[in-house]
Amino acid sequence: MYRTKTCGELRASDNGSVVTLAGWVQRSRKMGGMTFVDLRDRYGITQLVFNEAVDKELCERANKLGREYCVQVTGKVCERESKNANMPTGDIEVIASELNVLSESLTPPFTIEDNTDGGDDIRMKYRYLDLRRAAVRRNLELRHRMTILIRNFLDSKQFIEVETPILIGSTPEGARDFVVPSRMNPGQFYALPQSPQTLKQLLMVSGFDRYFQIAKCFRDEDLRADRQPEFTQIDCEMSFVDQDDVIDLFEEMARHLFREIRGVELPKLQQMTWHEAMRRFGSDKPDLRFGMEFVELMDVLKTGAFPVFDSAEYIGGICVPGCASYTRKQLDQLTDFVKRPQIGAKGLVYVKYNADGSVKSSIDKFYGPEVFQKLKEKMGASDGDLVLILSGDKPNKARMQLCALRLEMGDRLGLRDKDRFECLWIVDFPLFEWSDEEQRLMSTHHPFTMPNPDDIPLLDEHPERVRAKAYDFVCNGIEVGGGSLRIHDGKLQEKMFGILGFTPEKAMAQFGFLINAFKYGAPPHAGLAFGLDRFVSIMAGLDSIRDCIAFPKNNSGRDVMLDAPGVLDVKQLEELHLKVDLGQE
Amino acid sequence: MYRTKTCGELRASDNGSVVTLAGWVQRSRKMGGMTFVDLRDRYGITQLVFNEAVDKELCERANKLGREYCVQVTGKVCERESKNANMPTGDIEVIASELNVLSESLTPPFTIEDNTDGGDDIRMKYRYLDLRRAAVRRNLELRHRMTILIRNFLDSKQFIEVETPILIGSTPEGARDFVVPSRMNPGQFYALPQSPQTLKQLLMVSGFDRYFQIAKCFRDEDLRADRQPEFTQIDCEMSFVDQDDVIDLFEEMARHLFREIRGVELPKLQQMTWHEAMRRFGSDKPDLRFGMEFVELMDVLKTGAFPVFDSAEYIGGICVPGCASYTRKQLDQLTDFVKRPQIGAKGLVYVKYNADGSVKSSIDKFYGPEVFQKLKEKMGASDGDLVLILSGDKPNKARMQLCALRLEMGDRLGLRDKDRFECLWIVDFPLFEWSDEEQRLMSTHHPFTMPNPDDIPLLDEHPERVRAKAYDFVCNGIEVGGGSLRIHDGKLQEKMFGILGFTPEKAMAQFGFLINAFKYGAPPHAGLAFGLDRFVSIMAGLDSIRDCIAFPKNNSGRDVMLDAPGVLDVKQLEELHLKVDLGQE
Repeated sequence: MYRTKTCGELRASDNGSVVTLAGWVQRSRKMGGMTFVDLRDRYGITQLVFNEAVDKELCERANKLGREYCVQVTGKVCERESKNANMPTGDIEVIASELNVLSESLTPPFTIEDNTDGGDDIRMKYRYLDLRRAAVRRNLELRHRMTILIRNFLDSKQFIEVETPILIGSTPEGARDFVVPSRMNPGQFYALPQSPQTLKQLLMVSGFDRYFQIAKCFRDEDLRADRQPEFTQIDCEMSFVDQDDVIDLFEEMARHLFREIRGVELPKLQQMTWHEAMRRFGSDKPDLRFGMEFVELMDVLKTGAFPVFDSAEYIGGICVPGCASYTRKQLDQLTDFVKRPQIGAKGLVYVKYNADGSVKSSIDKFYGPEVFQKLKEKMGASDGDLVLILSGDKPNKARMQLCALRLEMGDRLGLRDKDRFECLWIVDFPLFEWSDEEQRLMSTHHPFTMPNPDDIPLLDEHPERVRAKAYDFVCNGIEVGGGSLRIHDGKLQEKMFGILGFTPEKAMAQFGFLINAFKYGAPPHAGLAFGLDRFVSIMAGLDSIRDCIAFPKNNSGRDVMLDAPGVLDVKQLEELHLKVDLGQE
Repeated sequence: MYRTKTCGELRASDNGSVVTLAGWVQRSRKMGGMTFVDLRDRYGITQLVFNEAVDKELCERANKLGREYCVQVTGKVCERESKNANMPTGDIEVIASELNVLSESLTPPFTIEDNTDGGDDIRMKYRYLDLRRAAVRRNLELRHRMTILIRNFLDSKQFIEVETPILIGSTPEGARDFVVPSRMNPGQFYALPQSPQTLKQLLMVSGFDRYFQIAKCFRDEDLRADRQPEFTQIDCEMSFVDQDDVIDLFEEMARHLFREIRGVELPKLQQMTWHEAMRRFGSDKPDLRFGMEFVELMDVLKTGAFPVFDSAEYIGGICVPGCASYTRKQLDQLTDFVKRPQIGAKGLVYVKYNADGSVKSSIDKFYGPEVFQKLKEKMGASDGDLVLILSGDKPNKARMQLCALRLEMGDRLGLRDKDRFECLWIVDFPLFEWSDEEQRLMSTHHPFTMPNPDDIPLLDEHPERVRAKAYDFVCNGIEVGGGSLRIHDGKLQEKMFGILGFTPEKAMAQFGFLINAFKYGAPPHAGLAFGLDRFVSIMAGLDSIRDCIAFPKNNSGRDVMLDAPGVLDVKQLEELHLKVDLGQE
């Protein structure tokens, strides 16, 4: 028996009892013949006391303990004279009578405290020490709690968790697959799943009725901010349901999670069409924690006075409350911000409605006071507000630029509070997007998404106008989940593959198993997947999904702790019938 | 709303209510102007009735329904005149008033019933239809139920489920890794984990205290019977515990599972040493559902009369009750059985103690009646019993052959009842095994296993005599789980690597992250992993783990439904800087 209690559970009511604890030395200090050691384990911190006057030899051994030594201590629980209300065990201390060093420690490369002095790189290399920090460990505890809640919720709704394989076939459609050479099938490769999409649809064909899986997914994409090559989905699929059935059920699940994890009661969520979200917020994942909605200004500003606006297809503004006092320098910063390549605006127009009633604008040489008055009314601006305006040839492109600006202003004004949660559903996505790169229509979601039945007549002539039976769950400007009704009619599925530019042969080669399965009484079905990493990040108020992943990879896809990936033995490559050819580019 | 009820829930108390059901046509039959259709979904089967006299057109449409059509039906629940006590919905039928074909079906390639006419190959190719069979689906439902029970049990014991990465580094020790080329790190490869062993030990160094994960694991081994390239482990690790703490906790978990899933109350389990298990049953996973324990016969049969026995290091027998009547042919079959290459015995000796008191043996020309009488006493045989004897130069090899024979006799006598569960722990494994192939000592479990502290003095001179602090959970002759105390002392770990023939450099290159981690206050820790696929198979009484896996692979590692693995595009290979070279062998 290494311990009789953990370091988080002793209270004043334990006064007088003899206990054995085990844990790590958080810190120690000498004070007037006494040595105080904070002993830490996962459950908390307990103060140990070594008294020189009582046991000199023991106290001397305690003085030699370094940070992060792993020790076992026996002693008597004593109520403290000066209690520490900041820690759960602050009412007591343990007067040590035995000390056993289980394992010594080198000096850690960074301090193991909530506010550590370790940079990202060193903390990732020594991730096993970083994970000792309560701030990091709590994220993983929350992740565990969420998955337990999710599984029990879905179980109570008759969902069955089914494990689908990790070694499957490669499908070039979509993102890039990770592949796995097969030794037993020389020259052939498995692929790791980007999601269990087709397999869960097969489970619906099998009559599983309600499936879920907390599933590892893999995408070999160039890693932009906050992407990981492997990530986790809460993957769900249901039969004999319509869009509202799915939305209702998963809204209930989200409500359950927010209540249990954060003590927050979600209201009935609004459903906003994709078009409305683009028009009002320039995004298919609007952050509703603050206003600054877009106002379209073509009628006010296309007067023949300012050629940039006259030739623009779209002119939109946001009203930033109380920021008319922005300096020249601040406004220049905002102009630089929207001109950054990843945003790509050509310029930024501002109008300051000063507190004294005067107006100052970057375009006041083009327009008279009556236009600025009309603009003020249209924007709903008050004296003291700042109006920011962007324009462009392509309305949705300009809207996305304005969205970036709106979010920036939300950040600057502290309006994006991590302890507030504004969730909604986005519906009526376009079924297709035009790809300039591929010069063809692509699925907005994936080729199995059901078109809105009302729009099926448009499929041949105006596919770009067809709406999808698809829905995204958005929270605080982040797409946390998304799904759709699926096509369950083989003929419609073939038509879709045709519009996407698949020859029948290619469709068959890639998705033959699914096309065939649909010939045997496929039920109507629909599904949804939440990004678990994102969902946990939001719940925990994290900036990056990395912080809720035990052993994340860096932006080059490397695990710097394991030093993976690495080179293989020649023998391993030979067994796989492979040669590495670094000359290829 | 596609349905108001499922096909499994209607009872006599629903009489008179109007319901909508959706599901698949299991079968239909016409009888005197009526058409009866059995409608099936995951929850059960409900009988539908179409009455020609009431609605001729509807009845005609019902007559056209083929097997496995997916349909929606509305009708009135009616108590049946002749009830069917064999089905939960057997008290009622639904008099259909509306019929909507959701999806037609081709004739399935095999019948979708518990006893199907489909062979293994066709059922795997059309696995999505095979999964419609209740017998198959129930295994996956049980698997789901078990994982929910396991997670909630471990959660209640303060275990945290932590996801460890699937893309890790390759470690040539142990079985062969599956590898994944990294596009972003040309010429380098990830490996898929054979188990999260080292990562869970790092989590202990991190102070996670109690970790678990239901984790996918991967081994690129040649697939013998009942192995899969990917399989699932219930993987656990605990800090500050000794062997008995681990055994107690997981015995409690097993007891909980057997109680909840099978209604069986496990007794307190015995712990048998590896040596005892080998001596009594010739196996480290003895099947205790029946007796026929080994009796060592060297003292009785080494008399100088029979050279084969005189030169044998080991002679052992089992007493098969009531089989003295075995014919010449049956005994020849048994001889052929033990001579099969995978068993490898040279021959089989039998002694029949006939019911009439006479003795007949294949060695009666070598021994007189007094030896057979002594043998009878030693074996505890009665008149009517058959004694089977094997001998050999290498005791444990001969014991394993005798074990195969014992299990065969158990099967023949119907003593291996799938509804009985005999579990035990095997302890005190040898720490090392000698590998003839590698000409060196190998870890019986893995290089992180703690030697028995009493045996540490033997490490240098007699490593083969050192016992491990390792334990296996065995049920009905199957190793369901296994684990060990781990070394948490860096110096002892280095010594172990040395005995296993690792140079310090090689040990560092492969396990440097773990060796380094142990320098920062590693706690004593221990763990265990259950094979989920095996555990489910035992609970469900299955012959193969394949039957509890949704989409299993065949013996060539192929998924015949997905037709994976497959060849890659040239472009994909180029991006990965790889060339396939089938000329290599």
